[in-house]
Amino acid sequence: MSLLVVGTVAFDAIETPFGKTDKIIGGAATYAGLAASYFTKNINLVSVVGDDFPQQTIDLMNTRGINTQGLQVKQGEKTFFWSGKYHNDMNTRDTLITDLNVLADFHPVVPESYKNCEFLMLGNLMPRIQMAVIDQLPVRPKLIVMDTMNFWMDIAMDDLLKTIAKVDVLTINDAEARQLSGEYSLVKAAQKILDLGPKYLVIKKGEHGALLFNKENVFFAPALPLEDVFDPTGAGDSFAGGFIGFLAQTKDISFDNMKRGIIFGSAMASFCVEKFGTERLIDLSQDEVDERVQEFVDLVQFDIALV
Amino acid sequence: MSLLVVGTVAFDAIETPFGKTDKIIGGAATYAGLAASYFTKNINLVSVVGDDFPQQTIDLMNTRGINTQGLQVKQGEKTFFWSGKYHNDMNTRDTLITDLNVLADFHPVVPESYKNCEFLMLGNLMPRIQMAVIDQLPVRPKLIVMDTMNFWMDIAMDDLLKTIAKVDVLTINDAEARQLSGEYSLVKAAQKILDLGPKYLVIKKGEHGALLFNKENVFFAPALPLEDVFDPTGAGDSFAGGFIGFLAQTKDISFDNMKRGIIFGSAMASFCVEKFGTERLIDLSQDEVDERVQEFVDLVQFDIALV
Repeated sequence: MSLLVVGTVAFDAIETPFGKTDKIIGGAATYAGLAASYFTKNINLVSVVGDDFPQQTIDLMNTRGINTQGLQVKQGEKTFFWSGKYHNDMNTRDTLITDLNVLADFHPVVPESYKNCEFLMLGNLMPRIQMAVIDQLPVRPKLIVMDTMNFWMDIAMDDLLKTIAKVDVLTINDAEARQLSGEYSLVKAAQKILDLGPKYLVIKKGEHGALLFNKENVFFAPALPLEDVFDPTGAGDSFAGGFIGFLAQTKDISFDNMKRGIIFGSAMASFCVEKFGTERLIDLSQDEVDERVQEFVDLVQFDIALV
Repeated sequence: MSLLVVGTVAFDAIETPFGKTDKIIGGAATYAGLAASYFTKNINLVSVVGDDFPQQTIDLMNTRGINTQGLQVKQGEKTFFWSGKYHNDMNTRDTLITDLNVLADFHPVVPESYKNCEFLMLGNLMPRIQMAVIDQLPVRPKLIVMDTMNFWMDIAMDDLLKTIAKVDVLTINDAEARQLSGEYSLVKAAQKILDLGPKYLVIKKGEHGALLFNKENVFFAPALPLEDVFDPTGAGDSFAGGFIGFLAQTKDISFDNMKRGIIFGSAMASFCVEKFGTERLIDLSQDEVDERVQEFVDLVQFDIALV
C-alpha cells in the first residue's frame, strides 16, 4: 500500500497584502506530499528539480515519510520558479514570473519500487506528463486523483480530456468547472464533467469551501472562517494531499469516506494558508490536526429531527 | 405569542438571464411573511401599499395566516415599485427603477392588537422607520431580527447604528459586513459588528451559504447547490422569514436552535429562487419543506470520530 505523488517541486516568490517573500519552497507535489504525510508514511514522490534545490528540504521530506528516489535532480539546471502577487481579496492573483527551467523538458520516470502504488495523486502538470505517469504503472491504482487548471483547458484540451477520462477523482475550482463544462450552474457542470470519465468531481471554491459530486450524491464542506488568510498558495494542493492521504491511510474509497477525506483535506488547506509557503505544514502535531478537524465538525453540525 | 413582520410590500419587475417579468408582487415583508407562514400562523404585518395593490394578494396573505390589519392602503397613491436586472452570474444586479411612491412618506403604525408581539422581523427599510416600530412596542419583544443594506450605510449611518444597537440579530450580506466593519476578514468583521450591540450576526453569502456568529460561536450553513437559480429576488427575505418563523414556532432562541433556524431559512431561500417572485412560496406542502431540509442534512452531514 503506497501513495504516489506526482507534481511540481518548485521555488515560489509570493506577494500578498500581508507581505512578500524571497524564493521559498513551493510546488504542487511539495504541498500535497507534506499534507498527506500527516495521514500515511508510505509516500513516493516523482518530480524534478535543478541542482539549486536545497538538500535540506529533500531531507525534510524524507523525515516526513516521503521517499524521494523518484525526484530527479538535474545537474547544471535550475528548479521551476513561479512568482505571483495576490490581490486584496486574496481570491485572485497575477502571475509575475514563470520560469519553467527543469520543467520544460520533464520526462517523469516512475522507479520500479513505486510501481505497485495503490493511490496516485497527479498534481497540476501538463496533462501529457500526467498521462505518462499513468502509462508507466503496470497495475492500475485503486484510486487516481487528478488536479489540473484552466491553463491546460486553454492550450491542451485534447490531452486534458484524454487524461481526465483515465482518473477516478478530478479536482478543479469553480471557474474551471464552468470553463470545462460550458455550464454556469455547478450542479449541471458537475454532471457534464462526470460524463467525461471521472467517477467523482471535487469543485474547490476557496474561501467558500468545496463540493464533492458523484452521479448520485453531493456533499459540501465549508472552508474554515479564518481571521486572516495569509497566503493562499498551495491551499488546493494541501487539500488534495490531505484528501488522498486520508483515503490511503483508511484504505476506504466509499463516498462516505471521501466525505471525511474532504474534511481532512479542508483542514490541511486551512493550515496551509495561515503562513507563507509550506511553513505551517512542516511540523503540525496530531493534536493540532484533530483540533482543527473538530472545528469543522462544530462549524457545520446541527440536529434536526424531521417527523 | 405572535410574530410581527415589518417591511416593504411592493411591485417588482425583474429581468434575469432566464426571462423577464411585468409587474409582479414583491417586497421584503411579503417574502418574509410568506416564508414564515410555513412555521407559524400568528403573523402580523405592518407595511404600506397604494390602491393599485391587488386585494387578491392581501386575501392570499390572510389565508396563509398573515394578519393585514397593519397594512396601510393609501387611496389615490401607488405601491412602491422596484425594477432590476440580474447579471449573468446572478450574484450582482443593476437597479433600473426605484419608485418610492407610498414609501416616500411611510409612517408605520403598529395596531394595538399587534403590540404584544414576542418576535419582531424588521425587513430592510430606512433605519428611522425600523426604529419607529421598536419605539411603538410597550414591551420589548423576546427577539428582534433586523435586515438592512449597504444603501443605508451610505446615506444614514448614524440612524443605522442607533437601530442596530437595539436588535438581537442583524442579517446582512458579506459585502455589507465588510463595509459596516471596515474589515475584510468576515471573522474580524463579525466581532466588530457584534460590538455594535446585536448578540447575533448572520452573514448571508448568497450561493455560498450563510454564517451565524455570536461572541463565542460560529455556524455555517451552505446554500443548496441548485441546477438553476431562476430569480434571486427575495432570497434574503425568505431566509430571514424562515429563520424567525421557525424560532417563533419553537419559542427557543438558543444558539443551537438558531442553527436549525438558519437551515430552515436556507431551505425557504432555496425555494424562493426556483421561480420568479413569490410564486414558489405560495403553496408549498409540508412534505416539500421537510424533503428540502433533509437535502440540507444530507449535503453537509459526515461522521468523523476523533480519538
